[in-house]
Amino acid sequence: MSGSIIYLIINNRRFKLPNTFGKLYKITTWGESHGDAVGVTIDGCPPGINITNEDIQFELNRRKPGQSEITTQRKESDLAEILSGTFEGKTLGSPIHISVINNDAKSKDYDSLKDLYRPSHADYTYDIKYGIRNWKGGGRASARETIGRVAAGAIAKKILKQKFDIDIVGYVKSIQNLTATVDTDTVTISDVEQNIARCPDINIANKMIDKIKEVRKNGDSLGGVVELVCRNVPPGLGEPVFDKLEADLGKAVLSLPACKGFEVGSGFSGTLMLGSEHNDEFYNDSGTIRTKTNNSGGIQGGISNGENIILKAAFKPTGTIIKQQNTVTNTGQEIEFGGRGRHDPCVLPRAVPMVESMVAIVLIDHALRHNAQNNFID
Amino acid sequence: MSGSIIYLIINNRRFKLPNTFGKLYKITTWGESHGDAVGVTIDGCPPGINITNEDIQFELNRRKPGQSEITTQRKESDLAEILSGTFEGKTLGSPIHISVINNDAKSKDYDSLKDLYRPSHADYTYDIKYGIRNWKGGGRASARETIGRVAAGAIAKKILKQKFDIDIVGYVKSIQNLTATVDTDTVTISDVEQNIARCPDINIANKMIDKIKEVRKNGDSLGGVVELVCRNVPPGLGEPVFDKLEADLGKAVLSLPACKGFEVGSGFSGTLMLGSEHNDEFYNDSGTIRTKTNNSGGIQGGISNGENIILKAAFKPTGTIIKQQNTVTNTGQEIEFGGRGRHDPCVLPRAVPMVESMVAIVLIDHALRHNAQNNFID
Amino acid sequence: MSGSIIYLIINNRRFKLPNTFGKLYKITTWGESHGDAVGVTIDGCPPGINITNEDIQFELNRRKPGQSEITTQRKESDLAEILSGTFEGKTLGSPIHISVINNDAKSKDYDSLKDLYRPSHADYTYDIKYGIRNWKGGGRASARETIGRVAAGAIAKKILKQKFDIDIVGYVKSIQNLTATVDTDTVTISDVEQNIARCPDINIANKMIDKIKEVRKNGDSLGGVVELVCRNVPPGLGEPVFDKLEADLGKAVLSLPACKGFEVGSGFSGTLMLGSEHNDEFYNDSGTIRTKTNNSGGIQGGISNGENIILKAAFKPTGTIIKQQNTVTNTGQEIEFGGRGRHDPCVLPRAVPMVESMVAIVLIDHALRHNAQNNFID
Amino acid sequence: MSGSIIYLIINNRRFKLPNTFGKLYKITTWGESHGDAVGVTIDGCPPGINITNEDIQFELNRRKPGQSEITTQRKESDLAEILSGTFEGKTLGSPIHISVINNDAKSKDYDSLKDLYRPSHADYTYDIKYGIRNWKGGGRASARETIGRVAAGAIAKKILKQKFDIDIVGYVKSIQNLTATVDTDTVTISDVEQNIARCPDINIANKMIDKIKEVRKNGDSLGGVVELVCRNVPPGLGEPVFDKLEADLGKAVLSLPACKGFEVGSGFSGTLMLGSEHNDEFYNDSGTIRTKTNNSGGIQGGISNGENIILKAAFKPTGTIIKQQNTVTNTGQEIEFGGRGRHDPCVLPRAVPMVESMVAIVLIDHALRHNAQNNFID
Repeated sequence: MSGSIIYLIINNRRFKLPNTFGKLYKITTWGESHGDAVGVTIDGCPPGINITNEDIQFELNRRKPGQSEITTQRKESDLAEILSGTFEGKTLGSPIHISVINNDAKSKDYDSLKDLYRPSHADYTYDIKYGIRNWKGGGRASARETIGRVAAGAIAKKILKQKFDIDIVGYVKSIQNLTATVDTDTVTISDVEQNIARCPDINIANKMIDKIKEVRKNGDSLGGVVELVCRNVPPGLGEPVFDKLEADLGKAVLSLPACKGFEVGSGFSGTLMLGSEHNDEFYNDSGTIRTKTNNSGGIQGGISNGENIILKAAFKPTGTIIKQQNTVTNTGQEIEFGGRGRHDPCVLPRAVPMVESMVAIVLIDHALRHNAQNNFID
Repeated sequence: MSGSIIYLIINNRRFKLPNTFGKLYKITTWGESHGDAVGVTIDGCPPGINITNEDIQFELNRRKPGQSEITTQRKESDLAEILSGTFEGKTLGSPIHISVINNDAKSKDYDSLKDLYRPSHADYTYDIKYGIRNWKGGGRASARETIGRVAAGAIAKKILKQKFDIDIVGYVKSIQNLTATVDTDTVTISDVEQNIARCPDINIANKMIDKIKEVRKNGDSLGGVVELVCRNVPPGLGEPVFDKLEADLGKAVLSLPACKGFEVGSGFSGTLMLGSEHNDEFYNDSGTIRTKTNNSGGIQGGISNGENIILKAAFKPTGTIIKQQNTVTNTGQEIEFGGRGRHDPCVLPRAVPMVESMVAIVLIDHALRHNAQNNFID
Repeated sequence: MSGSIIYLIINNRRFKLPNTFGKLYKITTWGESHGDAVGVTIDGCPPGINITNEDIQFELNRRKPGQSEITTQRKESDLAEILSGTFEGKTLGSPIHISVINNDAKSKDYDSLKDLYRPSHADYTYDIKYGIRNWKGGGRASARETIGRVAAGAIAKKILKQKFDIDIVGYVKSIQNLTATVDTDTVTISDVEQNIARCPDINIANKMIDKIKEVRKNGDSLGGVVELVCRNVPPGLGEPVFDKLEADLGKAVLSLPACKGFEVGSGFSGTLMLGSEHNDEFYNDSGTIRTKTNNSGGIQGGISNGENIILKAAFKPTGTIIKQQNTVTNTGQEIEFGGRGRHDPCVLPRAVPMVESMVAIVLIDHALRHNAQNNFID
Repeated sequence: MSGSIIYLIINNRRFKLPNTFGKLYKITTWGESHGDAVGVTIDGCPPGINITNEDIQFELNRRKPGQSEITTQRKESDLAEILSGTFEGKTLGSPIHISVINNDAKSKDYDSLKDLYRPSHADYTYDIKYGIRNWKGGGRASARETIGRVAAGAIAKKILKQKFDIDIVGYVKSIQNLTATVDTDTVTISDVEQNIARCPDINIANKMIDKIKEVRKNGDSLGGVVELVCRNVPPGLGEPVFDKLEADLGKAVLSLPACKGFEVGSGFSGTLMLGSEHNDEFYNDSGTIRTKTNNSGGIQGGISNGENIILKAAFKPTGTIIKQQNTVTNTGQEIEFGGRGRHDPCVLPRAVPMVESMVAIVLIDHALRHNAQNNFID
């Protein structure tokens, strides 16, 4: 009973602005940067899957702040609790609700942000869209919203692994002009997790780490590219026309905060090739139809062809910086402004599990859609 | 009566594989490359809009084959007929159905393609997805499917112009390594339409035309980049979290045939900048809040900020080429194969109205969504 | 080529106002009472199903006008053509487009209806909703719109029969105060089709036929109730909370023209019973869990329980009557008005296949939804 | 910090099985009968609406258990907390999250229910659908799930009142064979709230109360009918074809627990009338087009016509009774079973706000849809 009273108090700014993604594996995230908790509700998950808090925690730890010296120093344990949808360790087929407490939502003086539009943040656009805004923190535009995505992605990954043996491996391909060399056929999660830059090319990784430290010292920030490979995706996932697999992957990845570009297969560099160079010729690999090259990135006509799905996502430099900038207030007054407090000098290392999760959610959604229609009649 | 009988005969392979795009301005395209007609149904269009066949025809002519010496020589008049949803020249609020007859679907010998998987086409993936396929032409995977999108986009553009004075101008930014210089603040449709390459930089345009002719002679094909600017977009369009404006634009554009990459604002090149260089500082422009730079591409936090929306789409080289290639049949037999017949050596000039149309459809959809929620209470 | 020109002419008012129903088996109907054709597009149908025109024609003949002396005398052959989505007699997995020509859309003088709001029709509400209306016939509000539903329902029935051996049998339970006695365990389509009233209780059927003839002579119309049983529905179809099976069945049936009421199981009469009378006790029927009674109508907690699904739909008397009525014009002028021309004195016999079709569409949709989620992991 | 720890403990079985209803005003309910809390997330609410806890509490108090001597004696204060989506008393346009603590989820011995299928409950169907079930209480099938609906309905009512002055008044029309006489033009919420039966016909109300007490004493339960009137609904709400207003109202109401029947306007009794009696003639009421009668129940062609919307919902007798019944276990063993504990002998008085809420949610959803499309162009 007294617990209830405490609940009412501690929940007072919880559960902000959910939206929904997916057609059959539907996720709705809720919660904001400076509320008490964030989380996700997953509707449509198949029943009977073994899911534990540990499955989810592994991925959340890859995303969490304060995980290393090159991320924001906000201290969050980001402990996941599965609050519904499982029973005795298995999914029930009913919605799974996962919650994570915000421990370190410092009650610093947000009054200074009340009337201010921070450059390249969502303060201005939220205000003009709704005519009203909760100015106490970045709210739903914060990367903290992605906790729910990563938790939902952890479950999606587990089902994809169990059903198809799919591996989804993302990594930092580049930070500013530092670009890694990575073999998409062999790179593993362990390779990625061997350093705090989350870049499997150890030489470049070290340079990235140095660069991030240097830029942070200058009160500035960096951007970069996440690359991702999915291996063992069965052929046949994706729909013709509007719900092409690359279109849904693109939307999923571009909905992440700070993402400004997306490529699949040869992407923009493929525009420099001739058709005769770009076409992926088919051959017979001991009974399996394969392609000799993979400029298609594993998707043809919007449908997976069984080759590795390979994609890239561009993340702009973090908007929050310490350096002084010019901006305006909500009454149009021009002022100078300098960021304070904790922030990521470079979101790339933490973006890796975010991209992986969105990709996993798209793949499980299309796998369920494919199953509904094409595995119905024997 | 006799007309009916003829109808039944001439429609025999018509209306293939529609799918739907949009939440409130919903389009469903139907029809295929070698059927008798293609078209679109638009549900949710506001009533009372003046729409004529000419509005639609202007855009379809920009998309149609045989329009110039550098496109496929397939001859199609692509005449649009508005078959429902308008009355005395105005929209009724009920679904608009637009149909275009296929005149030049040559009954060439498709039997040679029956068992063949053309490299970098959708033959193999359709077969493995559904276990059955209509092999008589490219079907829904053909760019001819986009007629419906362009027709629906023409109406969307007209409403956006009438309501907000929005200009949407796309153009060929690059073909292979030939890259145009274009001022996004001033470029007009007339600038774009001044040459058959649909590139407003006339010097580069001429080089592009020469390059396309040369590559066609060699039986090969080219790719490139379409860039697009939307001017006068009101601030406030787009939704936080999953339906960010750039995410929906990305999905829309990536669902076009042959599109392999998408960028908004600074895109991939923005990853080379520092945060202090990339951030768009706000200023007060005689009472309007504006940004000094536009690395955000007109979208912040997923919502339009009133600046120009600027995006890029990468199109791979056309899959159909004359040169001999290796491939396999549906029984796994390895064979040599050379394309015959008419095809585009470079899709870029015809891709311009396709990209514009998908962007217009996303903008009108988000404008209606915004209107539903945020213009409801006075 | 000349065929194309004729097509453009004869299609001129075709394809009106489609809307969509269903989540995975999605149908979009188009066409109107006095256009040239009506039809449906079905998206999401499983591939590899044997479908013929005859499968669809059998159901359309049960729906068509002029089928007997107690229906409207409008003469329509209602011949179905499958125009896409099948290949060599099997479904492709891509959208199925079915079209039916309107042969007998008499060009009578609709000018008299131009400014008139017919009582209990949709003239007034369409006008006030959209501010504009095509007054040339009942348009989308006509029961002719249901051709597409019946065609889509015919395919749904075929799949349900092949996969689960489900029988869906509807019949006229009552017309005015004439109520039939029917055994839901044994009634067959043949029992229903044995007379033109589509009522399996032959004594009551004859009285119904006499009553309809008498009322028609008086220039008036009748309403009644369709009852329907589904046998062999597997347990497990339906979703908790909002998409309960009875809720989706109710929406489907209530969306039919003239339907004003819906019941499942005991319905309104169940409100007269005590809980101890109404509860359906479970028992073990040689290893199958069954209920002794079936007041639940085969659905518990929104999910099918394996017993027969039994429901009722109330249809009001036809709005179009010959008798003089008072009404107003669109300028508010009060006038007297008498219907002319052909109409159904009682829609009930023709409503039977409409109700069956909507039920079949809901069941196949829920079967696919169930398959997607609950038959994914072995 | 310590608050967080308590949160983790007290939330342990919270947030079960949400689903979603509505297209633009979307509600997702969560929580279950014997968890720690229940609630709702509302997405798409217009911004700037004044909303207080009191607005919601008024409606929740009408729904809550233990409110009178004829409801279940489960003691719940059902205190609503708005946890997100409002700021300084106004809606933000972002999702509104409302939570209600379960205080009286008695930890009685549910082990006795573990293997048991209660007659006319969802135990069996949940088990067979998912192959796994949380047997600790009725879960999502409990009427406690409707708290979220009533909270979301309270906000919908407030917006409808502010924007259109719409009144939505529901009441108990009948319990078993006791039927009230009510004037739909004048009945008010105060009339309804004057007695614990929530029946505005005081003579019948007293008989209802006596009947409920008597039946409870016998360990049995009762059903009945809720009637509802909406006054001042603007003409034009609802969509042609599948999303007819009566179809969406029907689905909304039939998705409530224990609802087995739905009628609009004349409903089933309209099937006994002649067309000439049933048709609602139009007349000119000082410039407003009105109908003399209202057998249509305020809806014609699926669209509101400005007359009162009148509908009825049939609720079966409560499934939980004290009397002994036969049933089976999940292994098929036949046993005798008698209900224990607190339950409603008749759900009707508490069903009134549930029906009102679902109706309000459908109306606001259709009002937003109408606004999106038909109030876009001036």
